[in-house]
Amino acid sequence: MDFTAIRAMLDDLPGPDETCAEAARVRQGQLTKPQGSLGRLEDIAVWAASWQGSYPPRAGHIQVLVFAGNHGVTAKGVSAFPPEVTVQMVGNFTHGGAAINQLSKTAGARLAVHELALDRPTGDFTETAAMDKADCAAAIALGMEQVDGDADLLCIGEMGIGNTTAAAALCCALLGGKAADWVGRGTGVDDAGLGRKQAAVVAGIDLHRDALGDPLEALRRLGGRELAAMAGAIVGARKKQVPVLLDGYVCGAAAAPLHALNPEVLDHCMAAHRSVEPGHGRLLKALGKEPLLDLGMRLGEASGAALAANLFRAAIDTHCGMATFADAGVSEQDC
Amino acid sequence: MDFTAIRAMLDDLPGPDETCAEAARVRQGQLTKPQGSLGRLEDIAVWAASWQGSYPPRAGHIQVLVFAGNHGVTAKGVSAFPPEVTVQMVGNFTHGGAAINQLSKTAGARLAVHELALDRPTGDFTETAAMDKADCAAAIALGMEQVDGDADLLCIGEMGIGNTTAAAALCCALLGGKAADWVGRGTGVDDAGLGRKQAAVVAGIDLHRDALGDPLEALRRLGGRELAAMAGAIVGARKKQVPVLLDGYVCGAAAAPLHALNPEVLDHCMAAHRSVEPGHGRLLKALGKEPLLDLGMRLGEASGAALAANLFRAAIDTHCGMATFADAGVSEQDC
Repeated sequence: MDFTAIRAMLDDLPGPDETCAEAARVRQGQLTKPQGSLGRLEDIAVWAASWQGSYPPRAGHIQVLVFAGNHGVTAKGVSAFPPEVTVQMVGNFTHGGAAINQLSKTAGARLAVHELALDRPTGDFTETAAMDKADCAAAIALGMEQVDGDADLLCIGEMGIGNTTAAAALCCALLGGKAADWVGRGTGVDDAGLGRKQAAVVAGIDLHRDALGDPLEALRRLGGRELAAMAGAIVGARKKQVPVLLDGYVCGAAAAPLHALNPEVLDHCMAAHRSVEPGHGRLLKALGKEPLLDLGMRLGEASGAALAANLFRAAIDTHCGMATFADAGVSEQDC
Repeated sequence: MDFTAIRAMLDDLPGPDETCAEAARVRQGQLTKPQGSLGRLEDIAVWAASWQGSYPPRAGHIQVLVFAGNHGVTAKGVSAFPPEVTVQMVGNFTHGGAAINQLSKTAGARLAVHELALDRPTGDFTETAAMDKADCAAAIALGMEQVDGDADLLCIGEMGIGNTTAAAALCCALLGGKAADWVGRGTGVDDAGLGRKQAAVVAGIDLHRDALGDPLEALRRLGGRELAAMAGAIVGARKKQVPVLLDGYVCGAAAAPLHALNPEVLDHCMAAHRSVEPGHGRLLKALGKEPLLDLGMRLGEASGAALAANLFRAAIDTHCGMATFADAGVSEQDC
């Protein structure tokens, strides 16, 4: 699969199933509660039915996918943690010791972690393209393939020391504004590190400026393999009729090139949460996504998405498990 | 137990366990994540340890308590639903058909519903006191007793047609402002009904004005049995070392008299969510509580609290189940 094939695919994705959505809306009006009183839980149930393309909506199988990549731009001192932490954290995922292991368990979700050539970091985007076309397309294809066609919901996240710098560069390239608008402290970089992150974003945009009008080129030059894989997973989920919860800033940045190519490509995605990384709120506005949670988190690893999966489960459980006014013999609204 | 005994009890409640809180803070700093990156989940774990008074914090037994009451003020046409819906919905709780049944199941919580003399609605507060002192004190005592001493978390909520009018009157009496600041559409009253709610609040405040300087008198005259029981449950939980998630507007209004008597009485309580009922945001500010969720809900039944219990469980699971940097051989922050 090359960039041409990817572009063609984005213009030929399945839409929402309006029959299923309408069935869900009708049932919402019959359940023993005032109309609309479950707020966004009601929206989630309708959205789930519409993108699962079946009725009633399901939450039995929640998949959490975490993609891990390494970044050449760490050479510029952009992270509070050394780059070897990426592979160490993948080990921690394997042994069940990370936050996402616990959060997946709490949500009753199945976690799968995919590492993308951690021993070959991407190019330092301040000096060269992060990936060549074949590398980028392969990461997108891998992401597409990892989506389980039987999943009822997909939570997408990442691990990669240096990747909030890549996310900031990609957002700045696609959405405009200054580097400072998109750069935050990531895992906790100090003021000097923050300055180095901003300088890296400025240098990257400057070096690749002529190619950044093409969103896939922006992803290839400034992004990273885990970002490309997340973009692929978003598309794969759409093709397999799996609704998606996007995690935080880096995941949102991976979605941004898809949105730039065709905003409807993200219609099957909800934003799980708003990270404290300052660029994330700005990015969510640009994507037109209102986050479900706003809890001051900034961990990545799909942690916000897995946490929001509990809300998804609650939305489906109430939709499918509650009695109707007729079932329960409860009087309906009289004014 | 009379009002004098209740007042004395509020000045003699256990405080937080600082040793347990400090143990939780220390472990947060050792877990394999950047410091603070789990945001409010980290705060919840420390808060839980501090109010459970033991370490590590637990989430094995989550109790959901729903109190149901009937309100004489429904005679003034303040609700979109007829008053018989209170007892019908209690039947629905018993048969497992309500939202809170599903939300309790999703959160792995145990639900208990207590109805308070539904066949004897409280007095219409626009004409008389809602309760006499013995009735109010008995409801407070009942609420205290229902808290399970083995619970790790208590979610408190209510059911009672007409009770957002009682909540608005109580908030207006204790916190000032105009009736319109505190009155919303509740279960979905139309414009005429909204006008009747405002008029009822104005009439109630006017009738009882001379007694409203005493928060317990305000609760007795303007509140309802389920509000008194919720206030009792908040106090009972404190005495039994059970942290509390407050549900929405009516639950918050039940907490307001306690806060007026002594703001520290609510230190073991978090606000689960912000309801769309417009008085609720104003009330939460007055109570100094930042809600965990803001999902456009307005159902009551402890629905927001039970939903937020999933966040509590996630907070405890990550705190207790994650590996430390030392356990996992992950390098720590280097700048």
